[in-house]
Amino acid sequence: MKKVAVILSGCGVYDGSEIHEAVLTLLALARSGATVTCIAPDITQKHVVDHSKGEVMLDEDRNILQEAARISRGEIIPLDQVHAHQFDAFIYVGGYGAAKNLSSFAFDGPAYDVDPATMSLIQSAHEASLPQGFMCIAPVLAACALGIHGVQLTIGNDPATAAAISAKGAQHVECGVGGIVIDADNKVISTPAYMLAENLLEAESGINQLVKSVLQFA
Amino acid sequence: MKKVAVILSGCGVYDGSEIHEAVLTLLALARSGATVTCIAPDITQKHVVDHSKGEVMLDEDRNILQEAARISRGEIIPLDQVHAHQFDAFIYVGGYGAAKNLSSFAFDGPAYDVDPATMSLIQSAHEASLPQGFMCIAPVLAACALGIHGVQLTIGNDPATAAAISAKGAQHVECGVGGIVIDADNKVISTPAYMLAENLLEAESGINQLVKSVLQFA
Repeated sequence: MKKVAVILSGCGVYDGSEIHEAVLTLLALARSGATVTCIAPDITQKHVVDHSKGEVMLDEDRNILQEAARISRGEIIPLDQVHAHQFDAFIYVGGYGAAKNLSSFAFDGPAYDVDPATMSLIQSAHEASLPQGFMCIAPVLAACALGIHGVQLTIGNDPATAAAISAKGAQHVECGVGGIVIDADNKVISTPAYMLAENLLEAESGINQLVKSVLQFA
Repeated sequence: MKKVAVILSGCGVYDGSEIHEAVLTLLALARSGATVTCIAPDITQKHVVDHSKGEVMLDEDRNILQEAARISRGEIIPLDQVHAHQFDAFIYVGGYGAAKNLSSFAFDGPAYDVDPATMSLIQSAHEASLPQGFMCIAPVLAACALGIHGVQLTIGNDPATAAAISAKGAQHVECGVGGIVIDADNKVISTPAYMLAENLLEAESGINQLVKSVLQFA
């Protein structure tokens, strides 16, 4: 039974983890029989967004781990307490949380950096030759952490994001919504998910393939 | 193409809609080709719960519609602007939001009542002979709104909840986690979901059947 860590960054597409992507990932992992642990940083979100209007709620502060625990029904552990060797594989869910909380990509564009604990976890897993999946905008995390290894990955086909990824030394590969990109040498698998998906079914197709591929490498 | 309303009560099992149930419902509806509209009351939640600890956050106030919009990726309409005749079917997702926000069941037990706009929508849909699905704890809404019609429904097998439902005139039918209860006369379909489910796969089985049955009646 493979032990898989699912890394969340809040709860909701505009300031945290994309909820459909998170649940589709958990569903695919449940079907595979994997043992799943949800993980999130125990720090404050950069933003809280009223998802009904798309507006930032300036007076609100929320904790990433507390909000991500909504997706995991309470069971969650702080990212800075996680060591790569505790798991067989890692999957990073998308949503703006990956670009606002786990990295500064949403604010800094190509000059972004990645949260230090997240950076360390990705690099430690890579050193241990453990497979890692990244969906939606989350491949920007891998690009920054593993760009030195020329990691191949996809965020679909957005030129600006692809350029930012390339600037980190990573190699962007265009990919359709239902597909995945596999970098076998670095054991990094990625899929566009809601970077391109227009509905749950489109997101599901790529996510199911990503989960399957990650588990094959585990 | 059937028009289906999915009624949400926030975002998170302990103070809003159960997220897995919501996404599984949206996924089953997407597979069916239905046109889906998410709906929630535009009022303040009764509670905000830190899902990582299970504790009420006394200083927090959140709006049910704004939080539910996290699940629907922003697209949502206020429940009090909805008329039953705009849709072919209705599905009420579970989670404590159904027992705290859409009704007072979590606080008042057998003496609970239902939010007036929710009550009115359920009764109007029933009068129009439109099918309605209720999962997890949400059947308490149907019991209160349609108890006078002796509606048959299930919340699984919890004796106290079953007794509270019966006290409203409804008829509780025990049901396994993967099953559904169909009241064909009242066009009410129910499934235990996370009242009994121990994981996503168990919840999925009943929810898929519920969605299929609701659409057959539509």
